[in-house]
Amino acid sequence: MDTTHAHPTIRRQVYIHLEPTAWTRRGLSLINRFICGLIVVSAALAIIETEPEISRAYRRMFLLMEWLAAAVFAVEYAARLWVCVENPKYGEGWRGRLRYVVSPLALVDLVALLPVLMLVGGTETMLLRTFRLLRIVRVARLGRFSRAAQRIVDAVRSRRYELGVSVCTAIFLLIVSSTLLYLVEGDVQPKAFGSIPRSMWWSIVTLTTVGYGDVFPITPLGRILAAITAIMGIGLIAMPTGILAAAFSEAIRQQERDNERQDSDPR
Amino acid sequence: MDTTHAHPTIRRQVYIHLEPTAWTRRGLSLINRFICGLIVVSAALAIIETEPEISRAYRRMFLLMEWLAAAVFAVEYAARLWVCVENPKYGEGWRGRLRYVVSPLALVDLVALLPVLMLVGGTETMLLRTFRLLRIVRVARLGRFSRAAQRIVDAVRSRRYELGVSVCTAIFLLIVSSTLLYLVEGDVQPKAFGSIPRSMWWSIVTLTTVGYGDVFPITPLGRILAAITAIMGIGLIAMPTGILAAAFSEAIRQQERDNERQDSDPR
Amino acid sequence: MDTTHAHPTIRRQVYIHLEPTAWTRRGLSLINRFICGLIVVSAALAIIETEPEISRAYRRMFLLMEWLAAAVFAVEYAARLWVCVENPKYGEGWRGRLRYVVSPLALVDLVALLPVLMLVGGTETMLLRTFRLLRIVRVARLGRFSRAAQRIVDAVRSRRYELGVSVCTAIFLLIVSSTLLYLVEGDVQPKAFGSIPRSMWWSIVTLTTVGYGDVFPITPLGRILAAITAIMGIGLIAMPTGILAAAFSEAIRQQERDNERQDSDPR
Amino acid sequence: MDTTHAHPTIRRQVYIHLEPTAWTRRGLSLINRFICGLIVVSAALAIIETEPEISRAYRRMFLLMEWLAAAVFAVEYAARLWVCVENPKYGEGWRGRLRYVVSPLALVDLVALLPVLMLVGGTETMLLRTFRLLRIVRVARLGRFSRAAQRIVDAVRSRRYELGVSVCTAIFLLIVSSTLLYLVEGDVQPKAFGSIPRSMWWSIVTLTTVGYGDVFPITPLGRILAAITAIMGIGLIAMPTGILAAAFSEAIRQQERDNERQDSDPR
Repeated sequence: MDTTHAHPTIRRQVYIHLEPTAWTRRGLSLINRFICGLIVVSAALAIIETEPEISRAYRRMFLLMEWLAAAVFAVEYAARLWVCVENPKYGEGWRGRLRYVVSPLALVDLVALLPVLMLVGGTETMLLRTFRLLRIVRVARLGRFSRAAQRIVDAVRSRRYELGVSVCTAIFLLIVSSTLLYLVEGDVQPKAFGSIPRSMWWSIVTLTTVGYGDVFPITPLGRILAAITAIMGIGLIAMPTGILAAAFSEAIRQQERDNERQDSDPR
Repeated sequence: MDTTHAHPTIRRQVYIHLEPTAWTRRGLSLINRFICGLIVVSAALAIIETEPEISRAYRRMFLLMEWLAAAVFAVEYAARLWVCVENPKYGEGWRGRLRYVVSPLALVDLVALLPVLMLVGGTETMLLRTFRLLRIVRVARLGRFSRAAQRIVDAVRSRRYELGVSVCTAIFLLIVSSTLLYLVEGDVQPKAFGSIPRSMWWSIVTLTTVGYGDVFPITPLGRILAAITAIMGIGLIAMPTGILAAAFSEAIRQQERDNERQDSDPR
Repeated sequence: MDTTHAHPTIRRQVYIHLEPTAWTRRGLSLINRFICGLIVVSAALAIIETEPEISRAYRRMFLLMEWLAAAVFAVEYAARLWVCVENPKYGEGWRGRLRYVVSPLALVDLVALLPVLMLVGGTETMLLRTFRLLRIVRVARLGRFSRAAQRIVDAVRSRRYELGVSVCTAIFLLIVSSTLLYLVEGDVQPKAFGSIPRSMWWSIVTLTTVGYGDVFPITPLGRILAAITAIMGIGLIAMPTGILAAAFSEAIRQQERDNERQDSDPR
Repeated sequence: MDTTHAHPTIRRQVYIHLEPTAWTRRGLSLINRFICGLIVVSAALAIIETEPEISRAYRRMFLLMEWLAAAVFAVEYAARLWVCVENPKYGEGWRGRLRYVVSPLALVDLVALLPVLMLVGGTETMLLRTFRLLRIVRVARLGRFSRAAQRIVDAVRSRRYELGVSVCTAIFLLIVSSTLLYLVEGDVQPKAFGSIPRSMWWSIVTLTTVGYGDVFPITPLGRILAAITAIMGIGLIAMPTGILAAAFSEAIRQQERDNERQDSDPR
């Protein structure tokens, strides 16, 4: 970049306001805040619109809002395409623009524009519209959140074998308990326990302590087995929780030790 | 304060008995204990009175109790107003009293008096009366409790980004699972899964492992998706629990290190 | 004790076999193992006997078992009374025996004998008979278990203010959520939400994530509030779990530090 | 083994491909991968086959698959029997083969072959077929998983007395709450609370926070007791989770200290 530019060009200024990583002031630029808000509103509307009672009453409003949002996103896309060459990552000229267009970020932007095109054809676009939420990750500068997410992923990964053992134990419990309940209650309640896959529905609902109550054993032996399954379900929750707690604890300790080492380092 | 006062004035004595921070002996003064008890009783009565079967039978008693409590609180308010000038924070004279009246503590006391005024007009005062519970914080000397609360708030704050990531993951899971169930079960159970907002009720009830059982999937595919949702629900509980456990662990360790540093400090 | 006694008296031998703290070999004496087993069996029978279908069919057997157990416990009581003077704690002669009779341990033994006396009169004795389970604590030598229990109690106590804050938060959430649901759903479902105490039943069932499904909100606003309550319920589980995990972690660390200090101590 | 063998015999090569511990390259041999896959497929089919709607429609396919799987397992068994003498553990000759045949691993392999023999006689073989899943442990080289499992078992064992106290507390709560509910609700709902064993079903479903909703108290006193039980249920989940979290934390710390000691060791 030419540093003699006292007044940056309009393209550069638009770039600075659109690209969160180029924004030097605190927080987000006004434009990106507005786009963030519009993404959330647009996704919320896509969710609410599926409710027939509401969508019938406010059909026009929903359509108008969707067209408006799409128009803003289209303008945003065009603007990003115009200023992308300011980013040294993509390079200048039409080659730089092409490189930008096929980048994952720009493709997500493009997909977020699709719903309005399909709206013309009348197809179900709700999924594509909630998909827009992903763009938040790109528009907002989520530095501290993504570092926190990284810490969580690291902690989970450092204990992946222990967590894997928990999952295997859970699958084992699931198969054993649903097989036993199938054998014990299969004849009495064929609809709920008439096969192992059917029993598995009960078993998962019990092991996760959800307990809808649509299926439950009625024979004494079935109830004893169900009681044991429910108690095992507590272990199923306690084990990964304990492993994760230890992993997060270790991650915090590790971080502190690194800080101390840095402090005592003479260089 | 004049230190030659061998016998403190009555106003000062009342002040010492009313103001927990001025009370030098252990625990609470008898007056404040009585007021604490009356606050709890008054709030409990406000809750019980909403039960029509009970309130119809004991209407008179409830009214009497409310008038009595209100009278005591009015006397207490007047007494606090009288002695407030003993507190150097507010200063002397009618300016000190005015400063006290507009202080948050005194305003909470005033709001606690409102229900009885509205009782004359017959309006619903139950909310205002349970609101009185807040006054416990002011009357009781909750030193160790408020320090513990501070430690919890600090621990939560130190991990706010990790907890934020948990919340975002939960919202993501909520949207994805309710969208999928809407697509799979929407036609079969339009009342329960006929729109994403309706599906969301099921999704939250499942992810939090509450499982009322008023709505649940009935198609095989819906059940498989529900099983995955329920298992994710366990992760949803395990993640914040693990993060909080690590944060509390770290807080205890930090406190100890501070104590050790203080001990080894030559001064 | 006279150390020249090469062959201890019969009374001393019975004492050694009856009193777990006098037993020098590993584990429990045969007599105490038998009594432990009988206590468990007797309590289990008391529980099972309440089932009308079973008790009607096997009335005689249950009565016989109860008489047998009572006879054994009576003989055991007499034997303990006979040998108690061997224990230097109570002293010799009839004064020692009297001191033993009024000791808490012997009183528990006596209460365990009561059911059979009341059986003659035909009164409900089930509660007194499950009460016998308490005697396990006295008959079995539960050294390592009681130390573990002490560690748990210590850990809980060291964080009692934090746990107290959790409980207060829970009560606050309980009052707020049941008041809101009473206001929102009270008119629609008067039976379930017609008063705050009634709403509280729903609120506790939701906050603890039990979710029986006998009561749940049906209005959209009620469901939104219930969803928030259910999510708060997760925090309600996560907070004490995290606090306890940190407390147990700290207890283990403390124990290690004590061990290290002991090791490095020159004396 | 003769080290001059530039080209190992066919038997040795088959042995290397069949025995995971003899396989020197990364991961699993192609043969063992195939057998792993077949075990999972065979167990999955055994589970799915119990569903009458599916098994009726695809009876032939299921039978064919089972015969095929059994044939492969039979060939595998024969091959293992042939090559087992390559393993120095069993020794050479027919004595070595006999020693292999009665080893637990080979017996599990033999049991996995049984279902097809019983299929001829038409007996229920589903349990024996899911049993095949155990063979995964033998075919797959689960080094890191088994070490993780060992760490979990060690952590649980190191806190076995604390966890035992949790279990005893749970049993105590179970007996107390079901006895109380039996006394309070027994006359109103004889089917659900008419005996302590019946009450226990409700009690376990509540304490584990499963909450099917098939049984719940309806009297005010019963509901208050149930509310207390449900809250205790949270403690029942929080306590073992906290103990396990502390145990896992300690295990990680111990491991690090061992690593550091190794690093600072001059040898």
